[in-house]
Amino acid sequence: MPVIVERIAIIGAGLIGASIALAARQAAAARAVALYDADANVRQRARELSLGEVFDDAEAAVADADLVVLAVPVGAMREAAASCARALKASSIVTDVGSVKQAVVEAVGAALPDHVYFVPGHPLAGTEHSGPDAGFASLFHNRWQILTPLKDERPQYALAVDRLEDFWRALGANVERMDAERHDVVLAVTSHLPHLIAFNIVAMAEDLESVTESEVVKYSASGFRDFTRIAASDPIMWRDVFLNNKDAVLEVLGRFSEDLAALQRAIRWGEGDALYALFDRARRMRREVIEAGQDTAAPNFGRERGQ
Amino acid sequence: MPVIVERIAIIGAGLIGASIALAARQAAAARAVALYDADANVRQRARELSLGEVFDDAEAAVADADLVVLAVPVGAMREAAASCARALKASSIVTDVGSVKQAVVEAVGAALPDHVYFVPGHPLAGTEHSGPDAGFASLFHNRWQILTPLKDERPQYALAVDRLEDFWRALGANVERMDAERHDVVLAVTSHLPHLIAFNIVAMAEDLESVTESEVVKYSASGFRDFTRIAASDPIMWRDVFLNNKDAVLEVLGRFSEDLAALQRAIRWGEGDALYALFDRARRMRREVIEAGQDTAAPNFGRERGQ
Repeated sequence: MPVIVERIAIIGAGLIGASIALAARQAAAARAVALYDADANVRQRARELSLGEVFDDAEAAVADADLVVLAVPVGAMREAAASCARALKASSIVTDVGSVKQAVVEAVGAALPDHVYFVPGHPLAGTEHSGPDAGFASLFHNRWQILTPLKDERPQYALAVDRLEDFWRALGANVERMDAERHDVVLAVTSHLPHLIAFNIVAMAEDLESVTESEVVKYSASGFRDFTRIAASDPIMWRDVFLNNKDAVLEVLGRFSEDLAALQRAIRWGEGDALYALFDRARRMRREVIEAGQDTAAPNFGRERGQ
Repeated sequence: MPVIVERIAIIGAGLIGASIALAARQAAAARAVALYDADANVRQRARELSLGEVFDDAEAAVADADLVVLAVPVGAMREAAASCARALKASSIVTDVGSVKQAVVEAVGAALPDHVYFVPGHPLAGTEHSGPDAGFASLFHNRWQILTPLKDERPQYALAVDRLEDFWRALGANVERMDAERHDVVLAVTSHLPHLIAFNIVAMAEDLESVTESEVVKYSASGFRDFTRIAASDPIMWRDVFLNNKDAVLEVLGRFSEDLAALQRAIRWGEGDALYALFDRARRMRREVIEAGQDTAAPNFGRERGQ
């Protein structure tokens, strides 16, 4: 693999930032890796994990960097961009990893100088764990990286997008380009709504007075445990997602609730045929997900041995 | 392991019935295994898989059996019991594997003669696959088997419950006893509601006109794919669960919808603190599930290699 950038600076050393640092070095996609995190404890941990050269201020971290990655929760993007804006090198590429794109384009775009190329991005990769210790170099292998380039007519901008795409491919990702608005709708369906529902059912179960919490935990393998995994994701990151992709989330949430009300009615009135038809339809989608290579066909995700 | 029963008869050779047949033989918990299925194709497949001695009628299958297991969808329990009732040996034990207990107690209880001991049960085990080919001997290893014994004062009844408990332990399960009503409420929370929600979100996503289906599938790894796995479970089995555990499901579904409406409102009004508090609470429950040994702590269920 050729070196794609001489020097990368990563603002935010959580699961994603740490994984980019490790992956860039493993793929030799960057000759030097600089990191900064607003949290002194995270900086300390990043040093202990040897994620790269860790700086105590953002401007020092981005000085001379050809590629700057903002790897912070969506609600902290504006501040992360502002904290390093003055020190950004002319013609450097700035990108982000936010799960929401329209709000980040606005927030970060306003904070950056004109002499850099801002190419918003979103790696569809992660685990339910968070923090620098959760990072690992193969996180992006065979996962999607979505880029939502701006309508920037400068010829160098198009080259910057291509270069960023090369960088992500070097890290093992499959890259797609998409309109920011479209991204926010697609992700509202495939990611934001599922997480919201998982958070809701897990919190609800904890509240239930008629079933003690220990029973819910004890018998969680019957379905509930899958929701607890999704609901274990970083709460700050997700708070920011919902605050910043409000319109798309409320839209799909509305549809979900309507459909759930219809299902509730079918149960109340004992409409077995309607239930069967819906469940059978849902089952078919699983086959498509597996055929698309997006999940394993092994029963229970293969998590139990001996199957 | 000692032989627990001389002869077991299993009515229904799907995922659960086939797994019981394989597990009972592997553990030598039964000396002979008889099977019957109402579907001739399933019987044929059961023969090809050498699951046991396969009979073409239910009465022949249960003749001389010490233990009869009804392993059919909840809605087919009454018919399964009635189809073999006349041939049941005096003092034999009859059990079932239905995911709902009160409705099965009524339906099966009415169909059985007085000279057998009916001990309802529910193994909290399964995968999203179904049919005889999906069965495997270790399905019940370290999983819960819930027994909901009747209020039957005969001394032999208590012995029958103990013997059935021994049988399930021989198959590797952990056995708990519970009141049937309590079972139905606990499972409505831990299993039935999660499945209903998964079916609903997957069917909704398929309906969405604003996001083509291929995009939903393509980007499903961002959260949605976990729901598709749950929604891939047998639609007949689940239709019967919702029709037969209506009251408990409607009760927890009502709470879920209320809580979701509150969450929706918090998003609409930008109440970040409320969202954070709820997400943080949900996250804690994941730790309890892992501490209880009900799931792996490996990121993404360990389904991706190299982590």
